[in-house]
Amino acid sequence: MENKKSFASDNWSGACPEIMQALNNANAGHNEAYGELDDIYTNRAIKKFKENFGENIAVFFVYNGTAANVLGVSHLMNSYHAIVAAKTAHLNEDECAAPEKFIGTKVLEIETEDGKIKPEQIEPFMQSIGFQHHAQPKIISISQVTEMGTIYTPEEIKALADFAHANNMFLHLDGARIANAVVALNTDFKTMVTETGVDVVSFGGTKNGLMFGEAVIFMNKELAVDFEYRRKQGMQLHSKMRFITTQFERYLTDDLWKKNALQANAMAQLLKRGIETIPQLEVSQEVAANGVFVFMPAELIPKIQKRYFFHVWNESPIGKPGMKEVRLMCSWDTTKEDIEGFISELKKS
Amino acid sequence: MENKKSFASDNWSGACPEIMQALNNANAGHNEAYGELDDIYTNRAIKKFKENFGENIAVFFVYNGTAANVLGVSHLMNSYHAIVAAKTAHLNEDECAAPEKFIGTKVLEIETEDGKIKPEQIEPFMQSIGFQHHAQPKIISISQVTEMGTIYTPEEIKALADFAHANNMFLHLDGARIANAVVALNTDFKTMVTETGVDVVSFGGTKNGLMFGEAVIFMNKELAVDFEYRRKQGMQLHSKMRFITTQFERYLTDDLWKKNALQANAMAQLLKRGIETIPQLEVSQEVAANGVFVFMPAELIPKIQKRYFFHVWNESPIGKPGMKEVRLMCSWDTTKEDIEGFISELKKS
Amino acid sequence: MENKKSFASDNWSGACPEIMQALNNANAGHNEAYGELDDIYTNRAIKKFKENFGENIAVFFVYNGTAANVLGVSHLMNSYHAIVAAKTAHLNEDECAAPEKFIGTKVLEIETEDGKIKPEQIEPFMQSIGFQHHAQPKIISISQVTEMGTIYTPEEIKALADFAHANNMFLHLDGARIANAVVALNTDFKTMVTETGVDVVSFGGTKNGLMFGEAVIFMNKELAVDFEYRRKQGMQLHSKMRFITTQFERYLTDDLWKKNALQANAMAQLLKRGIETIPQLEVSQEVAANGVFVFMPAELIPKIQKRYFFHVWNESPIGKPGMKEVRLMCSWDTTKEDIEGFISELKKS
Amino acid sequence: MENKKSFASDNWSGACPEIMQALNNANAGHNEAYGELDDIYTNRAIKKFKENFGENIAVFFVYNGTAANVLGVSHLMNSYHAIVAAKTAHLNEDECAAPEKFIGTKVLEIETEDGKIKPEQIEPFMQSIGFQHHAQPKIISISQVTEMGTIYTPEEIKALADFAHANNMFLHLDGARIANAVVALNTDFKTMVTETGVDVVSFGGTKNGLMFGEAVIFMNKELAVDFEYRRKQGMQLHSKMRFITTQFERYLTDDLWKKNALQANAMAQLLKRGIETIPQLEVSQEVAANGVFVFMPAELIPKIQKRYFFHVWNESPIGKPGMKEVRLMCSWDTTKEDIEGFISELKKS
Repeated sequence: MENKKSFASDNWSGACPEIMQALNNANAGHNEAYGELDDIYTNRAIKKFKENFGENIAVFFVYNGTAANVLGVSHLMNSYHAIVAAKTAHLNEDECAAPEKFIGTKVLEIETEDGKIKPEQIEPFMQSIGFQHHAQPKIISISQVTEMGTIYTPEEIKALADFAHANNMFLHLDGARIANAVVALNTDFKTMVTETGVDVVSFGGTKNGLMFGEAVIFMNKELAVDFEYRRKQGMQLHSKMRFITTQFERYLTDDLWKKNALQANAMAQLLKRGIETIPQLEVSQEVAANGVFVFMPAELIPKIQKRYFFHVWNESPIGKPGMKEVRLMCSWDTTKEDIEGFISELKKS
Repeated sequence: MENKKSFASDNWSGACPEIMQALNNANAGHNEAYGELDDIYTNRAIKKFKENFGENIAVFFVYNGTAANVLGVSHLMNSYHAIVAAKTAHLNEDECAAPEKFIGTKVLEIETEDGKIKPEQIEPFMQSIGFQHHAQPKIISISQVTEMGTIYTPEEIKALADFAHANNMFLHLDGARIANAVVALNTDFKTMVTETGVDVVSFGGTKNGLMFGEAVIFMNKELAVDFEYRRKQGMQLHSKMRFITTQFERYLTDDLWKKNALQANAMAQLLKRGIETIPQLEVSQEVAANGVFVFMPAELIPKIQKRYFFHVWNESPIGKPGMKEVRLMCSWDTTKEDIEGFISELKKS
Repeated sequence: MENKKSFASDNWSGACPEIMQALNNANAGHNEAYGELDDIYTNRAIKKFKENFGENIAVFFVYNGTAANVLGVSHLMNSYHAIVAAKTAHLNEDECAAPEKFIGTKVLEIETEDGKIKPEQIEPFMQSIGFQHHAQPKIISISQVTEMGTIYTPEEIKALADFAHANNMFLHLDGARIANAVVALNTDFKTMVTETGVDVVSFGGTKNGLMFGEAVIFMNKELAVDFEYRRKQGMQLHSKMRFITTQFERYLTDDLWKKNALQANAMAQLLKRGIETIPQLEVSQEVAANGVFVFMPAELIPKIQKRYFFHVWNESPIGKPGMKEVRLMCSWDTTKEDIEGFISELKKS
Repeated sequence: MENKKSFASDNWSGACPEIMQALNNANAGHNEAYGELDDIYTNRAIKKFKENFGENIAVFFVYNGTAANVLGVSHLMNSYHAIVAAKTAHLNEDECAAPEKFIGTKVLEIETEDGKIKPEQIEPFMQSIGFQHHAQPKIISISQVTEMGTIYTPEEIKALADFAHANNMFLHLDGARIANAVVALNTDFKTMVTETGVDVVSFGGTKNGLMFGEAVIFMNKELAVDFEYRRKQGMQLHSKMRFITTQFERYLTDDLWKKNALQANAMAQLLKRGIETIPQLEVSQEVAANGVFVFMPAELIPKIQKRYFFHVWNESPIGKPGMKEVRLMCSWDTTKEDIEGFISELKKS
């Protein structure tokens, strides 16, 4: 069957029914293009974002997470500045050098166990400040949820924001899975983002039930001046903007974002518990949101992938001979039956 | 009413019903992300493109026309090369310097009456070849339909392609309204594009009934090697790719592209005939496709715009005191009633 | 003879004796690299610049004029901004698209007769302000002396600066031949630059007797913050900086810049008068500084070039059949005998 | 005294007398600008390079090492490719992100003890080949002499070149101190570079007695096609080119490069032996060329720096409490008396 379930990524799922319905509803008659002033869909989406993040924000809509990360960050720096991020950050490893290309900048990597960085790991880069031969650290970028499935507490985010501001830097949050993090922390956007001091957010939804589109949120709208030109030059201005913004309006209505994220996170917990019942497998990272990382015997992997696809994350984890570390992602549409089928398949193999 | 009809642009309309249906249909289960090998929607769309343009093409899907233009062209040049285009080309004037930013290149402008360029106008730029202080002309870029609503004949395109190839250059065709051109010429894609010698095409559909997405077609697949990295680095790789490619599959099925373009073009002819009955108005460009350019008394414009919005294209056309040149665009959803209502409004004013 | 005189360009001459002597003098012992704090040569050069341009400036040294133009301007704009310049501006036509590459920007061209632009010619570009599809005009760049050998009066410069500042823009002055302009105007740097409101200057010397190096002067040092990183990233930081700065120190001492420029300008006047005695030649531009533009019969040109090389500027000037427009440049080392020999050669041919 | 000797860097010294003499000699009359065909100095320098590196090379002259590295490498890659280099590589750490800015690329870092990389350390990056989310490794860049004062044997270079070519990659050699390496290996340029399979070389001289200028050598001239436009667009084309090329001509005549490098290397050995007589100091790296790395008690450093300046390389070397690692560079003009004076100062402190 063509459309079989997988644990490959939360972007192998489609759009959730509510989002699809919103798209159908918005597809009526003419509407001002480019999200300009009279575009009611965009105006309503902006209003929803302000309700969730505060009135002082400025929010812009782009096509995807790569763009949200690159354009958002680029607006707060010059090309001779540098970004500090975990080595595993999507921005660092998985954008095919888009930040380097578009911003003309350098990403300073921090090695981590769990995808999370701490102020004391950034401290050594501060020695470059004022030295004209070195790119000048200006942005700290974190992923929430991280690429290792872990999450920062609001206190940890605040510590990074405080460090950034004390050093004349900004804090960027890559929120490709921001809903999963908020749900895991049992908190809200204001507590996790607005009140911790984050400066710019890539607000993703495609991994949690949207069809396309991502939002760049400047937490202080004064930092967003002229961003419309940056977006257009960055090839990210959609003409039929309503089809991005109607999705975000719906996503932020009736806690749809929360419903989808709760389901994905709950299925990850279920999956984790199932994995733990299988002796030859070992969960390798804290399961904080919707991803489960597992040490799996190498020879087992291709067998299982035939039925349920997933990605190998680490070909040769240290101290685990014969094993690979794999990533299993749950999505808004993962069901209890999917988990049970997968666990059953694992037990058979 | 929020969603009233306008003549502002063919991107003020929504997605046509067939496209919306295709999107709903594709929204089932899991599907491989990023248009990778097992993504059946992408494979089927590629097959449709090959049927229409020939088996030797390579086709890639991006988010919008800005990106199709910039990425497609960038793959055939270095930053020290230059693009030659009409001054009015979207690539030159309306991308907020995206080509300059992403490619690092210069656009050499040609002044035109009608948005069309001729080989003899490119000839003078050839003096720069071999002169190390000048960017080296490498790409000729034309828009079909042009930004002035005019179209090139296949013979004119072939003459430009021949000139390009004789000078070690490439020909790019910005096909934001390519369907409207093919329909106006009563021809097909192979005759207009494949057989004339075009090298790379930006194949648009959003202005003719799609929701989002654009295709970059390399007419010789050898020119496309590595383009997947260019696209990713250019921030234009969609994760849930099926939602772009299912649209193109449907668009190229049962002549949907033709039906939509025929309607838009026919309405432009109807509009033109209506305009011609009004003495104070004057059609200013040949009406070849779905746009009608009109000299209109300046004081009339804001009155009409309140009911039917449209854009002023030239604030002070030469030799037309008291007039402005306006652009009236018809779309796939423009109806006979819309035209009659608009003409009636004009006659009242 | 290998090193014969020419009228090709004022950069075919060598370094003047005083500059060569300064280089020899500075070549003693160790000196702090990169123009850092303890580099006495750089400190003394900066002091000289402040004497000539005022205490509020910040001055940085780079390798050449291309870099001074590109880096200086780039520091006052973002990539989505645009530069407005005469079509003939070196920045526009003769940098092989370096501004487009490094800044990622667009140069908006103004057609001129004489290489000079006026505020009313910039006015139409102001319609782009606030329109997100257009690069936003931010810099006006003028060349003083222009590429056509003409010069702006201080009043004309002030008018452009006032226009720039009234529109939230900056004025850049490409001073590749700034000394020749000041001498021609019988004025000084402060009157021509500081008091007219120029924001950033490319201060050249190589065309007036230096070996290499160019200065970027920010007229308000607050605009120069962080420029040292821009320079380094722009590949323009010289390690043995003393060899650039000792030249500028000497150049600005005992009016050496003035002596050299006076000689070049005087020789251009002598050359002009000689040309005027030859019926088949016609001086085509005002001879304001050290360049003489001449309509010359096409068949005559290769004969003369064998003995005295010079460049053709316009292959087919309008209304001058059978003629080409050539450029004859005088340098600090052009002598009365060179002019007489050249005129005599012309008369023979 | 202003110009006192230091061990800060080999670019604190001036131009050696022979180079200064060549500059004086070349400063006569007019000479074709920009290194064009009739420029005899440039032609003679190119001839010298071919004698040393083989007839199949193409050589271009730029201003400095940053540019030679960035432009040379950029000509063999696209922006979606990546450079693999030692973390300590100048290209990676000390160019203020110039490669990222100009090429739009990513530098993949390898941690090393001694600044040298091995094929097996590059192997893991090969997993990215064909994965569209990752920049594609295309260039291996090594420094010879390394930034840690160590050198590669020709066999080690050949192993890297073979690895590169087997993987469709190129090998770049940053030769800021290439003369010091050749001398240390007691070999010649052909053996160390041409015959090992290096593809592009940054050939420096400023650290070994030149005033300014650097050469980019493509070992296969077919790789250099169009490089003149890259250089111009890279802001690195000098108008009075003879003043760069006459230096290189002289440098490669009568083994001047060798004489200077032998002196610097010999002084480093003398310095090393002196250091070894002082119990509280410890040489921390192999002394292969003209640099000596030393663990030095932290409190001693500022005292010595007052008389002989040098740089701290590592503020807190692992396992050396109370010590810093400092770098002491010898230059072509370092004398036995300088070393003795320095050692004596150390012993006093």
